Amino acid sequence: MDQKTIVSLEEIYKPIHSFLPAVEERILEILATPNELSSEVVRYFFKSKGKFLRPALVLFGASFGSGIPHFVVTTAAALEIFHSATLIHDDIIDSAYLRRNLPTINAKWNSQVAVLVGDYLHDKAIEAIFETGNDQVIAAFLKTAGIVCDGEILELKEKNNFNLKEDAYFTIIERKTATLLATCLESGAILGGLNVDQVLALKRFGLYFGMAFQIMDDCLDFAGKENEFGKTLGADLQAGVLTLPLIRLITLLDEAGKAEIFSKVKSGLNHSELGDLVLLLREHGALDYSIERAREFNERSALELSIFPDSPSKKSLYALLQYVIERNR
Amino acid sequence: MDQKTIVSLEEIYKPIHSFLPAVEERILEILATPNELSSEVVRYFFKSKGKFLRPALVLFGASFGSGIPHFVVTTAAALEIFHSATLIHDDIIDSAYLRRNLPTINAKWNSQVAVLVGDYLHDKAIEAIFETGNDQVIAAFLKTAGIVCDGEILELKEKNNFNLKEDAYFTIIERKTATLLATCLESGAILGGLNVDQVLALKRFGLYFGMAFQIMDDCLDFAGKENEFGKTLGADLQAGVLTLPLIRLITLLDEAGKAEIFSKVKSGLNHSELGDLVLLLREHGALDYSIERAREFNERSALELSIFPDSPSKKSLYALLQYVIERNR
Repeated sequence: MDQKTIVSLEEIYKPIHSFLPAVEERILEILATPNELSSEVVRYFFKSKGKFLRPALVLFGASFGSGIPHFVVTTAAALEIFHSATLIHDDIIDSAYLRRNLPTINAKWNSQVAVLVGDYLHDKAIEAIFETGNDQVIAAFLKTAGIVCDGEILELKEKNNFNLKEDAYFTIIERKTATLLATCLESGAILGGLNVDQVLALKRFGLYFGMAFQIMDDCLDFAGKENEFGKTLGADLQAGVLTLPLIRLITLLDEAGKAEIFSKVKSGLNHSELGDLVLLLREHGALDYSIERAREFNERSALELSIFPDSPSKKSLYALLQYVIERNR
Repeated sequence: MDQKTIVSLEEIYKPIHSFLPAVEERILEILATPNELSSEVVRYFFKSKGKFLRPALVLFGASFGSGIPHFVVTTAAALEIFHSATLIHDDIIDSAYLRRNLPTINAKWNSQVAVLVGDYLHDKAIEAIFETGNDQVIAAFLKTAGIVCDGEILELKEKNNFNLKEDAYFTIIERKTATLLATCLESGAILGGLNVDQVLALKRFGLYFGMAFQIMDDCLDFAGKENEFGKTLGADLQAGVLTLPLIRLITLLDEAGKAEIFSKVKSGLNHSELGDLVLLLREHGALDYSIERAREFNERSALELSIFPDSPSKKSLYALLQYVIERNR
């Protein structure tokens, strides 16, 4: 895409930006506890801000209606808390030690603390969603929570499977990532009072966008800059998680080439070997191929917006599609 | 208590026994998934049956009404699933390798699988509770889930604190154990259509009974028979969790005695040292003291039943109080 048209996340968030401080406040309110350890871990985790993508999508979903009703902020907060719970547990699963440029909870405390604080956030997110009193939103959320977990179990099962097929990869990322982003837009849209067609269009937008988002995240794991990305590069592979660039590369190599990659990956890649692998991915066009798949999902995503009249929110969602392809973090 | 009056759990469960197979079936229905790994772990975990205490309490709660309505079985199943989720995560926290005489999930698979399958059970339990459509039951459950988790975080925070006071111990066990047992009876009572006073009486019965239950569980951790108890003896202490018998002992020892215990526990007790510690607990009456505290909670529990007319269920709940003092597993 054209460099000059790239806009920042801050710019994209403009239509809903004024609600984000309230979401942040609500998150801390929901998680407030006299328990000192929980409280300390919560403060630490939310000190380093993520992209706040999930709250933003909830707010965008609602913004297509006639205003942002009361419970949207709570829902946005709940979905960010739920997402945080999954990140905290993911970092145990992957033995990750860096998240948003800070040590993970399992690294700074230990995996026991991470298990329980993840559970705590999970519980609080559900309690907050229940407060909305909207059965449709609650049901969508609970179903999604199950799907996200299922996606993570699938990913875990397929760890170190060097024969993982693209289809299986797409199933995993749809479940572990895209479904939640779809639910964010869907929940916002429901609470914003949109009609069924509009709710479903935004939900599908979120699903396709989520696919593109995760594919690009997986590309960044190889080709990002660590200090911008905020995570350790090559962390997926180190944890045995095969993602689209490598899955693609493997289909392009002969048996000897495959065998060499397998053995290197199995024994753990050092910094220079990871660099070599990234070169190989580039040479074989595996990163470009992956980015192309992300672009295709984005195109499907963009089509879903056609039923909406022009608005700052619509413009932002288009810009978000571009952002996700160009982002560095 | 008088040996000849002890009755078995099977005998106690008689008034609600006919519903237990339906609960068991419902558990497997709720947890059914095409995901092979989840499915395998679920089958493994529920193959070895626990006491099914939580489902039984839900059913007992409802049995004081005019019959067992439809959603009681789902609620009973959901509460057992929720409890199982906490056990699975607990076993990671405590690095336990034995549960119900079988290797724990973290031992048989790994802690990653245990984190995610615990999350899966947790999500499914909440989804099932939500199906009841009873807002009071849902709210009670969600609040309890948060409290249980909070209790576990407190316990984790106080690990290896040899100055832990009795009060703090009681707060922890109320949160991590007793509250859930109270919620089981409360939920059953609500769904069974009992009036507010009856619901609250059964809830308090569950809370005090839960305190007695956990105190006795903690005594069994020292003085039980491993093959009957189904868990590794001394596991709490090995994991740094101080429970009432040891807390009591510590208050009775002089500084030299305390220092000796601390250093032994810190370096890890072998089988014979654990035996010595149990002897010391007995000599100082610390086990008897703990059992006496459990009896006191039981007495408060029994008083709560006075508002109910005589019935097989009431008789069973009285018998359960006795069972908990006399049980070996």
